Amino acid sequence: MTLWFGGDYNPEQWPREVWDEDVRLMRRAGVTVATVGVFSWAQLEPEDGRFEFEWLDDVLGRLHAGGIGVDLATATASPPPWALRGYPDIAPVTADGVRLGGGSRQHYSPHSPSYRRLAGRLVRELAGRYGAHPALVAWHVNNEFGCHVSRCYGEHAAVAFRDWLRARYGTADALNAAWGTAFWSQRYASFDEIEPPRAAPTLLNPTQVLDFDRFSSDALLDLHRAETAILRELSPGVPVTTNFMGPFRGLDYWRWAEEVDLVSDDSYPDPADPDSPATAALGRDLMRSLAGDRPWVLMEQAPSAVNWRLRNAPKPPGGNRVLSMQALARGADGIMYFQWRQAASGAETFHSAMVPHGGPDTRVYREVEALGAELGELGWVERQPVPARVAIVFDWTAWWALEQPSRPTALSYLGIVTDWYRAFWDRSVTVDFVRPGADLSAYSLVVAPVLFAADAAALDGLHAFAASGGTLAVTFQSGVLDESLHVHPSGYLGPLAATLGVRVEEFAPLAGPPGAEPPVIAVDGELGPLTGRWWSEYTHAEGADVLAGFAAGDVAGWPAVTRNTVGAGTAWYVATHPDADGLGRVAGALLATAGVDGVLDRCADGVEAVVRGDATFLLNHRGEQRQVVWRGEELVLGPREVRILT
Amino acid sequence: MTLWFGGDYNPEQWPREVWDEDVRLMRRAGVTVATVGVFSWAQLEPEDGRFEFEWLDDVLGRLHAGGIGVDLATATASPPPWALRGYPDIAPVTADGVRLGGGSRQHYSPHSPSYRRLAGRLVRELAGRYGAHPALVAWHVNNEFGCHVSRCYGEHAAVAFRDWLRARYGTADALNAAWGTAFWSQRYASFDEIEPPRAAPTLLNPTQVLDFDRFSSDALLDLHRAETAILRELSPGVPVTTNFMGPFRGLDYWRWAEEVDLVSDDSYPDPADPDSPATAALGRDLMRSLAGDRPWVLMEQAPSAVNWRLRNAPKPPGGNRVLSMQALARGADGIMYFQWRQAASGAETFHSAMVPHGGPDTRVYREVEALGAELGELGWVERQPVPARVAIVFDWTAWWALEQPSRPTALSYLGIVTDWYRAFWDRSVTVDFVRPGADLSAYSLVVAPVLFAADAAALDGLHAFAASGGTLAVTFQSGVLDESLHVHPSGYLGPLAATLGVRVEEFAPLAGPPGAEPPVIAVDGELGPLTGRWWSEYTHAEGADVLAGFAAGDVAGWPAVTRNTVGAGTAWYVATHPDADGLGRVAGALLATAGVDGVLDRCADGVEAVVRGDATFLLNHRGEQRQVVWRGEELVLGPREVRILT
Amino acid sequence: MTLWFGGDYNPEQWPREVWDEDVRLMRRAGVTVATVGVFSWAQLEPEDGRFEFEWLDDVLGRLHAGGIGVDLATATASPPPWALRGYPDIAPVTADGVRLGGGSRQHYSPHSPSYRRLAGRLVRELAGRYGAHPALVAWHVNNEFGCHVSRCYGEHAAVAFRDWLRARYGTADALNAAWGTAFWSQRYASFDEIEPPRAAPTLLNPTQVLDFDRFSSDALLDLHRAETAILRELSPGVPVTTNFMGPFRGLDYWRWAEEVDLVSDDSYPDPADPDSPATAALGRDLMRSLAGDRPWVLMEQAPSAVNWRLRNAPKPPGGNRVLSMQALARGADGIMYFQWRQAASGAETFHSAMVPHGGPDTRVYREVEALGAELGELGWVERQPVPARVAIVFDWTAWWALEQPSRPTALSYLGIVTDWYRAFWDRSVTVDFVRPGADLSAYSLVVAPVLFAADAAALDGLHAFAASGGTLAVTFQSGVLDESLHVHPSGYLGPLAATLGVRVEEFAPLAGPPGAEPPVIAVDGELGPLTGRWWSEYTHAEGADVLAGFAAGDVAGWPAVTRNTVGAGTAWYVATHPDADGLGRVAGALLATAGVDGVLDRCADGVEAVVRGDATFLLNHRGEQRQVVWRGEELVLGPREVRILT
Repeated sequence: MTLWFGGDYNPEQWPREVWDEDVRLMRRAGVTVATVGVFSWAQLEPEDGRFEFEWLDDVLGRLHAGGIGVDLATATASPPPWALRGYPDIAPVTADGVRLGGGSRQHYSPHSPSYRRLAGRLVRELAGRYGAHPALVAWHVNNEFGCHVSRCYGEHAAVAFRDWLRARYGTADALNAAWGTAFWSQRYASFDEIEPPRAAPTLLNPTQVLDFDRFSSDALLDLHRAETAILRELSPGVPVTTNFMGPFRGLDYWRWAEEVDLVSDDSYPDPADPDSPATAALGRDLMRSLAGDRPWVLMEQAPSAVNWRLRNAPKPPGGNRVLSMQALARGADGIMYFQWRQAASGAETFHSAMVPHGGPDTRVYREVEALGAELGELGWVERQPVPARVAIVFDWTAWWALEQPSRPTALSYLGIVTDWYRAFWDRSVTVDFVRPGADLSAYSLVVAPVLFAADAAALDGLHAFAASGGTLAVTFQSGVLDESLHVHPSGYLGPLAATLGVRVEEFAPLAGPPGAEPPVIAVDGELGPLTGRWWSEYTHAEGADVLAGFAAGDVAGWPAVTRNTVGAGTAWYVATHPDADGLGRVAGALLATAGVDGVLDRCADGVEAVVRGDATFLLNHRGEQRQVVWRGEELVLGPREVRILT
Repeated sequence: MTLWFGGDYNPEQWPREVWDEDVRLMRRAGVTVATVGVFSWAQLEPEDGRFEFEWLDDVLGRLHAGGIGVDLATATASPPPWALRGYPDIAPVTADGVRLGGGSRQHYSPHSPSYRRLAGRLVRELAGRYGAHPALVAWHVNNEFGCHVSRCYGEHAAVAFRDWLRARYGTADALNAAWGTAFWSQRYASFDEIEPPRAAPTLLNPTQVLDFDRFSSDALLDLHRAETAILRELSPGVPVTTNFMGPFRGLDYWRWAEEVDLVSDDSYPDPADPDSPATAALGRDLMRSLAGDRPWVLMEQAPSAVNWRLRNAPKPPGGNRVLSMQALARGADGIMYFQWRQAASGAETFHSAMVPHGGPDTRVYREVEALGAELGELGWVERQPVPARVAIVFDWTAWWALEQPSRPTALSYLGIVTDWYRAFWDRSVTVDFVRPGADLSAYSLVVAPVLFAADAAALDGLHAFAASGGTLAVTFQSGVLDESLHVHPSGYLGPLAATLGVRVEEFAPLAGPPGAEPPVIAVDGELGPLTGRWWSEYTHAEGADVLAGFAAGDVAGWPAVTRNTVGAGTAWYVATHPDADGLGRVAGALLATAGVDGVLDRCADGVEAVVRGDATFLLNHRGEQRQVVWRGEELVLGPREVRILT
Repeated sequence: MTLWFGGDYNPEQWPREVWDEDVRLMRRAGVTVATVGVFSWAQLEPEDGRFEFEWLDDVLGRLHAGGIGVDLATATASPPPWALRGYPDIAPVTADGVRLGGGSRQHYSPHSPSYRRLAGRLVRELAGRYGAHPALVAWHVNNEFGCHVSRCYGEHAAVAFRDWLRARYGTADALNAAWGTAFWSQRYASFDEIEPPRAAPTLLNPTQVLDFDRFSSDALLDLHRAETAILRELSPGVPVTTNFMGPFRGLDYWRWAEEVDLVSDDSYPDPADPDSPATAALGRDLMRSLAGDRPWVLMEQAPSAVNWRLRNAPKPPGGNRVLSMQALARGADGIMYFQWRQAASGAETFHSAMVPHGGPDTRVYREVEALGAELGELGWVERQPVPARVAIVFDWTAWWALEQPSRPTALSYLGIVTDWYRAFWDRSVTVDFVRPGADLSAYSLVVAPVLFAADAAALDGLHAFAASGGTLAVTFQSGVLDESLHVHPSGYLGPLAATLGVRVEEFAPLAGPPGAEPPVIAVDGELGPLTGRWWSEYTHAEGADVLAGFAAGDVAGWPAVTRNTVGAGTAWYVATHPDADGLGRVAGALLATAGVDGVLDRCADGVEAVVRGDATFLLNHRGEQRQVVWRGEELVLGPREVRILT
């Protein structure tokens, strides 16, 4: 297979005379794959049980004749009006008890028996009819699972939640212990008494909420599994994917990634946000990490503007190319779009497309066509690896746990992870993401930011990494709670306290007067003066060297950054969140200890550098010229220039 | 009939001894008309089907004896508690399914069969009893239709919506085509599957939402029609009105205005807002435009403070007079208030009244009395015309369509229209508002700001205006969609693209980083340097002259303001929203092209000048002295001075 | 009884081996009382009607053996899951109709017959078993009544509300008169038509809302009374308390305080808020005032951080002690905490405790232990009085009435009261709070800030105080409405207008353009230049001396501060809300007139001084040294120093 290049194709929105032009323009643009049928349920099954496939036969036939492969969707993402009306249990329900109706999309509860039955029937029909179609290159299960409704609180959800809890805990007593129900008189005599974490007078039981997060991710995953089972039965050998949404809080993609043959991602960086190239890179690296030894493709991006932000800036000239090349550089084997032809009506009328409202005589189409041609020459990157010696621990349990209310202070898990990621990205250092408990032997440096809740095995794994010679960095608010959100019996940090050589006595989150932004805190020591955000604490160095200490307030003189020697390696503890400059210096010190160099000798703002296979990709995301040094050579990159050095 | 002067009169809140003083004070204040019965349903029909009219007989008798005319309300705006309890279908329902209860006002759904039946019965009783009463000068239908509840989403609403859609589209296929239901799997097999746009997982179908807006306006209008039919049957020859609320988004007043004999308006400019004189003027001009060749009256204003803002500033000394005279100058044939006597209890205890809590020995009453005397001398203005050579196209479909989510950028329709209006108001140029498709032959200059959705006929009408010698100005985000919210088949601007001599290739809304205000953009050219807000775009001049171009960013060098010669006239396109200064310069250039002069030779901040009949009204809305030049003569206006020059 | 020292003790969260350490550490820390069982319902009654008391027998036995008294909770604050599932009427319902479920706490409606029955049965069991237990020092009814759910709008609430209204008004006509239902067609034919003030189209009837506030406070009080009746029957002679929450808007504590033997308070000042020592002092003084001649104890405070703010700062070193001593100085006979041992799981895992997660080897425990020892030496303060010659009128009806929507301007009742309190606190003047109508003969100066709604008797009482020689100060927005929220028939201020020698003609709230903060206003006169906030008005001095007048805007020249001689005293009117500096000067002038001195000759920022019995307590709340002058002597107080001078 060559690199995928193409996009979502919704021919049902257009008369057949347009289909002819579509295939012609696709060929001209170098399109290799089209994703078909994502929102076609109502066209495929206009009435309960009556299917109409002729039009789709035609579409697939035309595409195949044009040499274009098809990523065929199972079409289950948006049930038709007849389904919602005939089977009211399909509608999702909010925590306040509001039933969500039709007229938009994704108006189904994953716990609805009717939805599961109808979706399964549709997939069986599709797989039976098209499972061996010569155009078929992949199956596309549903669409962006959980995008708008990742939690449903209705009665079917309650039943399913109880079943999930029975499977997890076995007995009510075990659940009571895990949930700490002795607090606030919440002891359950039986699973039947349990409800989803619906609207309540005040703070809900944290473990109940966390388990509902886990359950909700699993419930959607179960839909995916059910569809996949049918596809594998009726269409053996065809790879199955479902499109992820970057670092999406709703679903634990580590568990999901195990269930697909091909990881695919939808990515919509905001052109008006100067930080978006870095956050896009994070998404690419996460996808590569989720995929492991399987391929991944960029399944959706916008050629220019989207339609769902408050203000939707277009991509600048060259912007589409540089972000596409970024995905390629970071391991993607396909560059796809939503969507092929811009809609003339409907909720996404103003979402840009490969063929805009203005038709092919537009800069947007011309840039797409040029990129298609360029990708045609780049097939050699396919399945080439992207080496990384640095890993960041990324975990949905920690994310869900940290962002509950009733925490020492409000923190953004993704925000803090992104700040750490950015410190490496700015230094042209490629990063993998790893799940807790993963094999870390390939890495020289591992960072665990705000790994708030973690089981002992995961913490032991970090210890082992350091002890075997690695450089480990752990931040404040890590290892505080176990997987059931109980404070680790041995205290904050659990077993890592010994690894790090510190004892955290008491938290001192930075806080200002009511309504004011929290203050920052001065930090000083051998790393030079730093500025800390969000956090300080009373931590004892018990064996660790103090590299920096808090320099103000009640915690003045207490350690802020420490380093401990453990076995053949070192374990660093960072007791605050340095600002961008400070984090850069901490990251620099860690890289130096770990002996990891960046791709560039000298970096520049907005210039990204990454190695894939034998090639080095230099990407200037800015609209101005930039100078960098690579392998001792001064290079000048034009505005939004992409340079591939081999 | 002389000019109306008076207010809402709610004698049922007071013992009869107060009624004597009321009539006495009304006479002293020069009151000519009292609006009676607006919230009297529970007093008129204390139990289901049992009516008590004696008190109202008494009130009307006293007023008539005092020489005061009565604008008699149909009293249907607030159903009594027994109605809500006895007929639960009366209660409106929100999009989230919340039933709105009693204890306030307007707690009825326009779709409730019970409400329609009970309201009709009451109106029939009233019209039968008072239809020929000698005091009667007008019927006042309901009150501020739609003020708090202009959309109801309950089950009766669903039934009525389906009926409305059947009448509009005939077949489900036609509806599917208009709504673009091929998108997101929304194809309806029958009208029975359709629901109101209730709470949903994400963006609703835009045409469904627009049709629900249209339907909701029509449903309330249908209530108005039902009452009016009874009144015309039982009280022939008496003019019927219902009080509008200025530029109110909920109802398409162009359609409503066709149904009344007399346009009336409620207007509450904020005394703390220095821009409120201009926005009040806009409201007056809109009412005059809605009325056409019928009269209009200012039905409600506050003598001083209102009670429903967060902070309710009183009107300053003289403030009541200058705003009243503004209405007169802009065509009103009546100046009325809410309300006559300030309430001693209830939700509007702190709404000012002609007779305040402090009684007649107050500046508020004294100012009212003085104004009454003054109006007694101004009867000659009645039915005198207010000439205008400039028109602004104003349209509810464009308003509803532009302010949906999922637009290129978030824009305020009324905000942008107001900015354009203000540019003319500041130059003492009187403006009419016109609906799309209106006869424009009376105007020299027509501006169509953000006419986002418009049918081809309306756009053709604008073309014809320019071709026949007019000066036409059209802004960005006009003519993008048709009346069903499909992109015009010939592209953005539809047929106007040829008129304007431009082709809009791609939108480039101004956007900043997440959470930040959008940046502005520099514009330069023969109009001098301007600052654009909200918008830029990639537009090709295809025949038009480029008067100004964008001077920064990716759109640098692309046209921002163009002028095209078309037939005997010119057609201008404005591709951004200039700030106040820039809009003033654009307006000035348009006025010069169109040969339209302002009333004043030199204007001043806060001074309004308008001609009605043979008189020129000069109104200084500021608390400080102002100098202007009128017909070559320097005039000094004192603080809040009103000068009428004839 | 010695001073109480201890905290909430939740042994059910821990295995019994921990209980041994608990008693040992409690003894070491000087704990005298433990509050047990607050959230034990599910442990005490694991199934409907089956009780398990053995564990509690054990706990009480151990505590008694350790010499520790028990404040035994009735455990009714959080019904077990079986109760909510078995008796669905228990769940509270919001104004929008949302049913609040379990999983947190306080998920009960006070109007639920099932809840009342189940709670009564539990209390009867507890009182029967432990009513004469030798460890028992007090009964602790429920917990923080109304904390999360002080208003319930369900069907049982409607029934109870109607009964309460029948008892208050007797006839529907009387209710119609009181509620002013002639406004907006709200006349009720019978009580059966009345509903709680649920979600409605717009502003609700103000008196309906006020009566619902009163009713809701009374309904919870009725729960308290029902429990108390059982306790007094089965456990005679044991004092009963329920923990208040400082100045809590939900409940009228003047009515509540009558029903307890011992006032107790939960107090959580924010360590990050530099104003919190003053607001904490206000709470202490309110509790002392509520208690009258009964004792009061600080029932809950945090040794360090709480967990429920967005950001939870720890108390600084010494901070726990200084705030504890503040309570003692202001009359408390006990210093208690939530809670004894920090929870390992559940919603309050991160709420600090006397024994933190880190165990006794922590600064938090060490500070607790030191304080316990210190309190052991301070038993002599018990029942010693705290003299005050200044009183502030504090009233829940005024609070509820002022903060309704539809007011002249948005004002914070507690904010304005606190500003006045602060002016005295800054001058080391102790203040009592009094309810309207209270005996004022003990005071030299009485201040009534924004006493928006008040009956004539209360206003007459203020008059009598001034006439008999007192110094009275009344602010704007006082005496506007009567107890039914009708404007006083004689005008604003009602009978106080004569007392104050003023007539308020019209309000002029300060307001800015939409979205802007309101402007301030200059005031000038013999008090020097002041800055007024929120308010100005048109007030005539009719007998009073004008001490200061507004110096800007339309009210320039009108009185801002006046003083009237009335009988042997003086009555001051303050027609704006001066800023902190100005309020200090007004307070200073009032104190001088009343002949009241502060405890200190010279005060300092953050230093509090108060006399209890024969001792003077000096408390430095700041982290820096402070100098004050006391009885002519210059004293230096170290950071957070507490000095007790006798």
